[in-house]
Amino acid sequence: MFDDIQLHVNSSQGKSFIEKLTKRNFLFSFVISYTETSEIPGITFAGSNKEMIKFTPPADAEYLHYGSCKSIETIPMTPDGKPTPALITKTALEMSSIPNVIINAGSKIEPQMPFIHTGLEYGKNIQHDAAMSQSQVMHAIDYGRIIGRTLGSLTDCLVIGESIPGGTTTASAVMRGLGYEAKVSSSIPKNPVDLKNKISSDALKRLESDDPYHVISQLGDPMIPLVAGMLSTASDVSNVILAGGTQMAAVLTFANKIGFNKDKTAIGTTSYITDDKSANFLDIIEQVGGVPSLSVDPKLENSKFPGLRAFSEGFAKEGVGAGGSIIASMLKSGFAANSFLPKIEDEYHRLFTLQ
Amino acid sequence: MFDDIQLHVNSSQGKSFIEKLTKRNFLFSFVISYTETSEIPGITFAGSNKEMIKFTPPADAEYLHYGSCKSIETIPMTPDGKPTPALITKTALEMSSIPNVIINAGSKIEPQMPFIHTGLEYGKNIQHDAAMSQSQVMHAIDYGRIIGRTLGSLTDCLVIGESIPGGTTTASAVMRGLGYEAKVSSSIPKNPVDLKNKISSDALKRLESDDPYHVISQLGDPMIPLVAGMLSTASDVSNVILAGGTQMAAVLTFANKIGFNKDKTAIGTTSYITDDKSANFLDIIEQVGGVPSLSVDPKLENSKFPGLRAFSEGFAKEGVGAGGSIIASMLKSGFAANSFLPKIEDEYHRLFTLQ
Repeated sequence: MFDDIQLHVNSSQGKSFIEKLTKRNFLFSFVISYTETSEIPGITFAGSNKEMIKFTPPADAEYLHYGSCKSIETIPMTPDGKPTPALITKTALEMSSIPNVIINAGSKIEPQMPFIHTGLEYGKNIQHDAAMSQSQVMHAIDYGRIIGRTLGSLTDCLVIGESIPGGTTTASAVMRGLGYEAKVSSSIPKNPVDLKNKISSDALKRLESDDPYHVISQLGDPMIPLVAGMLSTASDVSNVILAGGTQMAAVLTFANKIGFNKDKTAIGTTSYITDDKSANFLDIIEQVGGVPSLSVDPKLENSKFPGLRAFSEGFAKEGVGAGGSIIASMLKSGFAANSFLPKIEDEYHRLFTLQ
Repeated sequence: MFDDIQLHVNSSQGKSFIEKLTKRNFLFSFVISYTETSEIPGITFAGSNKEMIKFTPPADAEYLHYGSCKSIETIPMTPDGKPTPALITKTALEMSSIPNVIINAGSKIEPQMPFIHTGLEYGKNIQHDAAMSQSQVMHAIDYGRIIGRTLGSLTDCLVIGESIPGGTTTASAVMRGLGYEAKVSSSIPKNPVDLKNKISSDALKRLESDDPYHVISQLGDPMIPLVAGMLSTASDVSNVILAGGTQMAAVLTFANKIGFNKDKTAIGTTSYITDDKSANFLDIIEQVGGVPSLSVDPKLENSKFPGLRAFSEGFAKEGVGAGGSIIASMLKSGFAANSFLPKIEDEYHRLFTLQ
């Protein structure tokens, strides 16, 4: 039944993770955040122009709930009009009636809907400044722990997705700071590797120790410690799917330092991430201690819409927990991987006919 | 097994409500709010002095989670040192491992912990001003609907408690404005009925119609429309216990106008409310359409601590969903009503030895 979910890294544990969660309940939590690192020109495509980037996380949240955005007119798009991966997430969650909650971990703009408030501020541009104070890091972990324990106790499996423009750059810096040789993916098909490395290298010069709290404070963003905190408690009381690619790898490298239950944790993502030759996602996961990694191929290359085929051509690849949401939807309802494309196309059609 | 839960109003439906929820899962949601009506001298005991009243709702929330408060030094108390009913709620929830979430519906002070943000402002003093604009009323209902649908989908029964100092006064005014002859309870043993009636009467003079949205806007507080919204959707997808006395009666009178599922709703409270001869709580519930009402006697009159015996002598009586929390804890774990007092005394002892 679940031949459509590819297992990587610790496949035997991945298989039992899948088996125990078949036909169970899932809760999708969507962590929105912001780093001023995203304002460096050329670093992200998560927004149709520079001024729109800060609206992408709250607009993704609004779209997931309302089916349209309130903070901006249309759904978030790349500069050339390719849609947010939230389109995939929304379709997958609705197909299996998986509820979602929004967590604001320092978004520059508040979403116009109920959300879990954390009081976190957005992260600074790591090229020039510490991302946040160490007390903000501790605050993020503490609040993440509270949120993770509560949400975990309400479901068989907490799926955690994120939206933070520029987040692959901070993720890359954090992994390097914690001693991993990370090559990360990008929302941009021609991954701006040199630029990311320059930013990371500038930021790494400020490191005074390899203390993980210091590393996050200097090189991270608010999403990373908050999600690590959520993982630490949610994996105690329930199961967790970290839904994402590069950013969730960074979360794992940090969570490894503060502790979490590896037997109840998996990464869930798209095959666009696991197949990305410019990155070494699975290597990192392996080095972090072998959390099972699940991926799914949404077969968007078969779409009649160029905007959807673009995902398979290296745009966005992942985000808003798209891959993990498809996996959760498959596990809850028994859908095959090819069930999603027609529904995603319906939603794409609805959106672009409406507008 | 559940002889300890008294059934009032539509007892047969109350009995089946109890039966279907035996050994099921519960989620406690705690709605904190504020009305400037609480600043009228003599109207509330929810705070050790006038300046402390606004801290009571967030401090109750903090205490439920942390076991101590962050916004103030001690737990909330009456002017003469009697403790908040949150002490009962916390004990009951922990005995059955019932998780809780905090919803900020216009608290003047934000609690120092994660909470669900609604963007609502606190209510004005209804003696002199409209409580809130009609657009704030609609906002509260809309956000309540979103929150209720999400939380309801995560549990077999959503328990909704509240903390809003001065809330019995706004509740009284709302019920009168909607055409009910309400005599309401109070946190003060010598219920300041004349004062409440004076405030209500002054406020009622501003009414231009019996349109329920207008009534809430003029006479209510932000908690009432938010909880009514939560009830409307949560009772669609799950079961709901409105945990409280007078304020929840006011919620029901308004919810009756906007719609909710009566077959999946009950009121849960303490016998101090249902036995209160100065009020006509059960009459109101009957008039609103016969939602089953459950009450429990926590037998605090048997306590060795005067601060706990005070509840049975007319102080506080209810609040922070204390009665409904005991009922939920009994249903989930099969506890008898007399199981709670020893644990409540342990918690009382812990608190007053610590301080």
